Amino acid sequence: MPDESRSSDIAATMRDIGAAARLAARSLALAPTEAKNRALREIALALGARARAIVAANEEDVEEARSKGNAGAFLDRLMLDDARVAAMADAVAAVAGLPDPVGRVLAQWTRPNGLAFERVATPLGVIGVIFESRPNVCADAGALCLKAGNAAILRGGSESFRTCAEIAEALREGLRAAALPEAAIQLVPTRDRAAVGAMLTGLDGSIDVIVPRGGKSLVARVQSEARVPVFAHLDGLCHTYVHGPVDLDMARRVVVNAKMRRTGVCGSTETLLVDRALANTHLESLLTSLADAGCELRGDREAQAADDRVRPATEEDWSTEYLDAVISVKVVAGLDEAIAHIERYGSHHTDAILTDDAAAAERFLREVDSAIVLHNASTQFADGGEFGFGAEIGIATGRMHARGPVGLEQLCSFNYRLRGAGTVRS
Amino acid sequence: MPDESRSSDIAATMRDIGAAARLAARSLALAPTEAKNRALREIALALGARARAIVAANEEDVEEARSKGNAGAFLDRLMLDDARVAAMADAVAAVAGLPDPVGRVLAQWTRPNGLAFERVATPLGVIGVIFESRPNVCADAGALCLKAGNAAILRGGSESFRTCAEIAEALREGLRAAALPEAAIQLVPTRDRAAVGAMLTGLDGSIDVIVPRGGKSLVARVQSEARVPVFAHLDGLCHTYVHGPVDLDMARRVVVNAKMRRTGVCGSTETLLVDRALANTHLESLLTSLADAGCELRGDREAQAADDRVRPATEEDWSTEYLDAVISVKVVAGLDEAIAHIERYGSHHTDAILTDDAAAAERFLREVDSAIVLHNASTQFADGGEFGFGAEIGIATGRMHARGPVGLEQLCSFNYRLRGAGTVRS
Repeated sequence: MPDESRSSDIAATMRDIGAAARLAARSLALAPTEAKNRALREIALALGARARAIVAANEEDVEEARSKGNAGAFLDRLMLDDARVAAMADAVAAVAGLPDPVGRVLAQWTRPNGLAFERVATPLGVIGVIFESRPNVCADAGALCLKAGNAAILRGGSESFRTCAEIAEALREGLRAAALPEAAIQLVPTRDRAAVGAMLTGLDGSIDVIVPRGGKSLVARVQSEARVPVFAHLDGLCHTYVHGPVDLDMARRVVVNAKMRRTGVCGSTETLLVDRALANTHLESLLTSLADAGCELRGDREAQAADDRVRPATEEDWSTEYLDAVISVKVVAGLDEAIAHIERYGSHHTDAILTDDAAAAERFLREVDSAIVLHNASTQFADGGEFGFGAEIGIATGRMHARGPVGLEQLCSFNYRLRGAGTVRS
Repeated sequence: MPDESRSSDIAATMRDIGAAARLAARSLALAPTEAKNRALREIALALGARARAIVAANEEDVEEARSKGNAGAFLDRLMLDDARVAAMADAVAAVAGLPDPVGRVLAQWTRPNGLAFERVATPLGVIGVIFESRPNVCADAGALCLKAGNAAILRGGSESFRTCAEIAEALREGLRAAALPEAAIQLVPTRDRAAVGAMLTGLDGSIDVIVPRGGKSLVARVQSEARVPVFAHLDGLCHTYVHGPVDLDMARRVVVNAKMRRTGVCGSTETLLVDRALANTHLESLLTSLADAGCELRGDREAQAADDRVRPATEEDWSTEYLDAVISVKVVAGLDEAIAHIERYGSHHTDAILTDDAAAAERFLREVDSAIVLHNASTQFADGGEFGFGAEIGIATGRMHARGPVGLEQLCSFNYRLRGAGTVRS
């Protein structure tokens, strides 16, 4: 039963956090690049200096998680050792080395009346980050928000509560050392889930956008309940479509990479579409390469006919993001059917065509409505680092503001700066 | 008392409209520029051909509005005559002449592994437009959405119901003539207010963004209730700040234009801030120029001391958007106080500094957090046409996606198109 005084306490705490973030955002928006970079370098140093305390707190978190019956990948995501703390510090220091996205002139032009226009990148404001499991998100996301001049409100999963509290100490220490407001990066200081609900309302206009980082149920809840914009993707149901003519070796190499390089990432291919025209020349070889790499095969009748290791795919397979060494395989009549399949079952995240037919490739790139579309390349490139963004806070499949990898540029807004000479409107 | 069968009818109608819009958006996104331009030219012709029917329907709407006690500006906004229908048709034809924003390459780069990246403009999807009074919004907004490859769902005020129904006939006729889906621009066919509520929920994901066009109460309702992103501004509480040294004639000319050129537009200046250092040299002359132009003056004690026509300003005046020939005047200690006043009372819409001090101007442009900031120019330039955008669907003060005048470019999203040569991720 909810305790009324407790939930009003949490509401008050969250309102204070929101107000402090909004105030800090105003300072951060005007902070010189050097102050932000200094804070990032100091945070990296503080993470290093506090490594022992962070690892000790993490051991308590891991122990509690284990005692609650968690195991395997869950504990691995949660666990920090000295090497992981060092990697987290390095990642923060690397953000200091990225160009400052604030103040970039995105466009400029002059009108016939002499009025000179500039569109200039400015911070977005206050970013709420709700994450689970991996405590390094606390430092990574805080660093990216800071570099883009935004205040951050971070809410970690209760499983990493002690670890994140130690990391937050390092964040505050770094901000202080650079004379930036400590409220620039705030960690929500309670495990109470009511804090998440409060963030999703936007804290009376104090949060401009929310970024969920975690499993599908977290993202789904945030997308359905948030009253403020969300940068996220619910699914990464990515397709690779093989269209003839195409070099078989190239296709095999890319398909195996797209599926098997890492099966647990959102850019891994979940469904392989193959032209019927290639059924006799390419299909068996593509399936063999996948099976040899350790991939389980599920397919339609034609795929089953090509290789008896292919088990029947059900309707559900076409909309399943396995995040595992499993692939669904469908033979299609050609480009139109491939695009229609992707439109119907895909998640508008990342889809690729492999072909030597340049015209077909261009049609695919133009017509597939996904954040990332590729020709003759692996879907596993769906990653801000691979884009050259330096780092990403996540990947978005919405069409508003940010789409694809969300890096420093997408954590910015813009405004218009007009310069005249006593110019009046007639 | 709500009639349950009626509201379930409306819910079903709106769901159908949403589903049809989503389907049409897919065709429109892929429609060649020439098809979209042809539709726009055909719509313009159809508006001309139907002018008599539109004006006749409008006369009924105006008569009904008058019989309900409306008068003056309300009836003027609602009224269409032959000249206004012709202007509406011309505005639609002009959109055909604007460059197609879809398919523009916004950025391109190549990574060391040879992977070539493009960020390309794509349509946003489905845009809901909720408007009042001026029936020309029906054609204007529909045309802009169409040119940017978006489907539009238009909901007019009940006062213009008959007029908009006739305009919508012309829209459908033009779309048919260009072989584009009629559902590309749909007018909600009911006066029932439940339709607005349905649109604000996003129609089960069928509306990507809502643009309200109308009075403050409409915008406030949309901003507070919409579950999808909104492009809008609630207030245009714009400031002009006069900072020394500054040429007095230039300052007088720009201040009078900023306030008095048109007092009813969102970019008109509502508050004049004047440096104390200019109190003896400039203030009286600035006030005289405004009074001579017919402007009522309300000010603080120092403004009152400079001119006895200045009536005392109350606290409320600093946050009042008069939209009339009234201005509030405050004497400030300098740049810091001016910026702090704008931050406290402004609406982050449009604010200007008039000065010959280049360093002060640059600080103002950098530190004032408004969609549009100007140096030595009139705040009345807050208009997409004056920006060179050709046309605008509105002005936004939010920081997500669109800010300032929302033209064709801001009605677009983007995606990433990557081209490799069998490129795999290591």
